[in-house]
Amino acid sequence: METGFFKNKKGLLFVVSGPAGSGKGTIMKMLMENGNDYALSVSATTRAPGLNERDGVEYHFKTREQFESMIANGELLEYAEYVGNYYGTPKAPALEVLGTGKHLLLEIDVVGGLQIKKAYPEAILVMIVPPGAAEQERRLRDRGRDSEESILRRLERAKDELKQIELYDYILVNETGKAEETANAFRAITAAEMNAVARTPDVYNTFFGK
Amino acid sequence: METGFFKNKKGLLFVVSGPAGSGKGTIMKMLMENGNDYALSVSATTRAPGLNERDGVEYHFKTREQFESMIANGELLEYAEYVGNYYGTPKAPALEVLGTGKHLLLEIDVVGGLQIKKAYPEAILVMIVPPGAAEQERRLRDRGRDSEESILRRLERAKDELKQIELYDYILVNETGKAEETANAFRAITAAEMNAVARTPDVYNTFFGK
Repeated sequence: METGFFKNKKGLLFVVSGPAGSGKGTIMKMLMENGNDYALSVSATTRAPGLNERDGVEYHFKTREQFESMIANGELLEYAEYVGNYYGTPKAPALEVLGTGKHLLLEIDVVGGLQIKKAYPEAILVMIVPPGAAEQERRLRDRGRDSEESILRRLERAKDELKQIELYDYILVNETGKAEETANAFRAITAAEMNAVARTPDVYNTFFGK
Repeated sequence: METGFFKNKKGLLFVVSGPAGSGKGTIMKMLMENGNDYALSVSATTRAPGLNERDGVEYHFKTREQFESMIANGELLEYAEYVGNYYGTPKAPALEVLGTGKHLLLEIDVVGGLQIKKAYPEAILVMIVPPGAAEQERRLRDRGRDSEESILRRLERAKDELKQIELYDYILVNETGKAEETANAFRAITAAEMNAVARTPDVYNTFFGK
């Protein structure tokens, strides 16, 4: 895919995290729909499929036994257990995408993001946030998807996530009504990182045609 | 100038280097002409003004005594001596520009760039290069500005500069006829760096309105 002077660059591995109401899902949809530069990782999970969820599309649905064998065989980039169910990122399809030069988007939480960073220091960690806690609460109430208890839990969780912001590389504030600007800011991060010296091997020999 | 959620961000300090024939002058002109985001640092020098060069525009022209007093008083961000003349970057106007939120472009060589990085680790070092040594030589010959000796010296110098590329942050290949693309790649670096967590102080308290 890379057609520039320094060829054979691999795609970038992005971790995209953000508190509920950040609009990160919308941003990733925009990145996926406009052009062919990004691929979205499909997580594996042991939870039951929801209505209209298809195996291999929204999730790879696994039994607990299958999932634990994936853990044992090192087939996951990261995984975690929530409320009795496993969630994780299958390794093989991720590495395959990166080899084609596409950038891979992992929509995972801070715990998973830090697992990825440890195993793949070249991963780029991006946190997408609403413009402030008050706006976050307004968005969660407006969308009417969560119970009061769930809203309060999500607001509380944002505190834990933002306490770890120093471990992330970039923070994008997704202002209300400006998702396209946020998507462009994400594309700018991608373009900049592709021109990072740290990601450009063998500059000297390539330049001098050796 | 910064109008986003995380306010009062300072402008970015860019070092822009590149071998002769890289077209870095054209790129910086484009950045200066399109919008009001960037300012170009005016160097001080002890060399005599060239034809049509105005004091304070192309350079700040100084006597040797004046320049050495600037060195002694710590009034320069970096300086070097070439062929019997001093060249340096005045500190006060640079810091003033950054305080307004504008990004400052320092067009200096690798030696000066590394001096800046040492004194200001937050500086961003960008190397602009032609697409290969053969194309560099073609450009230098085509512009017909240099003697054969000068061309050979400039080609030789590119080797020394590119040997130190690992100390730079970004490398932009200025493909022939694609200067606007290179300028856009520079703008992407600027946008990405402005969203770097490392440049965004006090995320937690700002988000929670404290």
